[in-house]
Amino acid sequence: MFTFELHTQKRNEFVEITDRVRHALKQSRVRQGSCMVYCPHTTAAITINENADPDVVHDMLLWLERAIPHVQPGFRHGEGNSDSHIKASLVGSSATLLIEEGSLVLGRWQGVYFCEFDGPRTRTVHVQVAALST
Amino acid sequence: MFTFELHTQKRNEFVEITDRVRHALKQSRVRQGSCMVYCPHTTAAITINENADPDVVHDMLLWLERAIPHVQPGFRHGEGNSDSHIKASLVGSSATLLIEEGSLVLGRWQGVYFCEFDGPRTRTVHVQVAALST
Amino acid sequence: MFTFELHTQKRNEFVEITDRVRHALKQSRVRQGSCMVYCPHTTAAITINENADPDVVHDMLLWLERAIPHVQPGFRHGEGNSDSHIKASLVGSSATLLIEEGSLVLGRWQGVYFCEFDGPRTRTVHVQVAALST
Repeated sequence: MFTFELHTQKRNEFVEITDRVRHALKQSRVRQGSCMVYCPHTTAAITINENADPDVVHDMLLWLERAIPHVQPGFRHGEGNSDSHIKASLVGSSATLLIEEGSLVLGRWQGVYFCEFDGPRTRTVHVQVAALST
Repeated sequence: MFTFELHTQKRNEFVEITDRVRHALKQSRVRQGSCMVYCPHTTAAITINENADPDVVHDMLLWLERAIPHVQPGFRHGEGNSDSHIKASLVGSSATLLIEEGSLVLGRWQGVYFCEFDGPRTRTVHVQVAALST
Repeated sequence: MFTFELHTQKRNEFVEITDRVRHALKQSRVRQGSCMVYCPHTTAAITINENADPDVVHDMLLWLERAIPHVQPGFRHGEGNSDSHIKASLVGSSATLLIEEGSLVLGRWQGVYFCEFDGPRTRTVHVQVAALST
């Protein structure tokens, strides 16, 4: 298992981590298999989405903040970050990627993102690379 | 593959199953690898989220019920549980966890939940533990 | 890794691919393990849900189109398909299935769907079948 840290700057933010996942893959020397990117936090998530135009991430965050407002009537959780927990479960705590010929199998526009929903914080990401057994 | 049953009490409810996943892991004797928790139902899901303050689950369920109401104009499905199916696909039918030194790699506040969206029912969960191949 | 193409007909559409995943599984000759179905596109997704009554898919698409409208104030992405990217990250880029005795472990009503959110297009799906290592 490979672990790295990152520092987020805003309450809601997507940080691209594709190169850090590739670094973990390289260290593993696995040529064919899969790669699990895991977020051990309950107010953050991992997703795969477009990394060409930063406006895509802008619009995703805008929708998330509108659909799941920070303050809502009836919310009980004393820390006041229930919106962050909801976003985390909708986006998901991990992403799995395929590996062929020692490289991540990503679509042309795909990148891997750490999704911060309660920053700024120092966060941890785990990456496990598994060789394919057949 | 390890399989267990659980009984839900409400239409919408999160049941923590972390200890039952740990039990499956212990039986497998795997020391390093990954663990897949799978829900074979189309109106329920699996998620990883906070297990310290039960108000977090309360607020997540409150948001889900508001955002995806039980009855909606235009819904056609005769069983009247389309909201349950929508919640199931948004939260997801499985969660994957990492295993190191024979233990689940969970963040400090993370637990594994079975998410009931059309209870009360008797439900089944599958757990598959895979050793890491390198 | 097994790869196949499909052609979608509408902007938003779920195409069932369970039989194509089974075909990949059969070719792999794996008897016990797991199967990863991966979508290499950023405006499409993979989900597992009911395949008995087509009204379920109708209602899921209806909710998604209402909750995440095509045009929204404040959206910046020039291609005008930010709604598609949001749906893709909520539903998720992959699904993992269990394999026992050479068959997919699916619940009675479960099927695997390719979720098109920006069609019609020609799309690609990857399937990786891994034998269980213990």
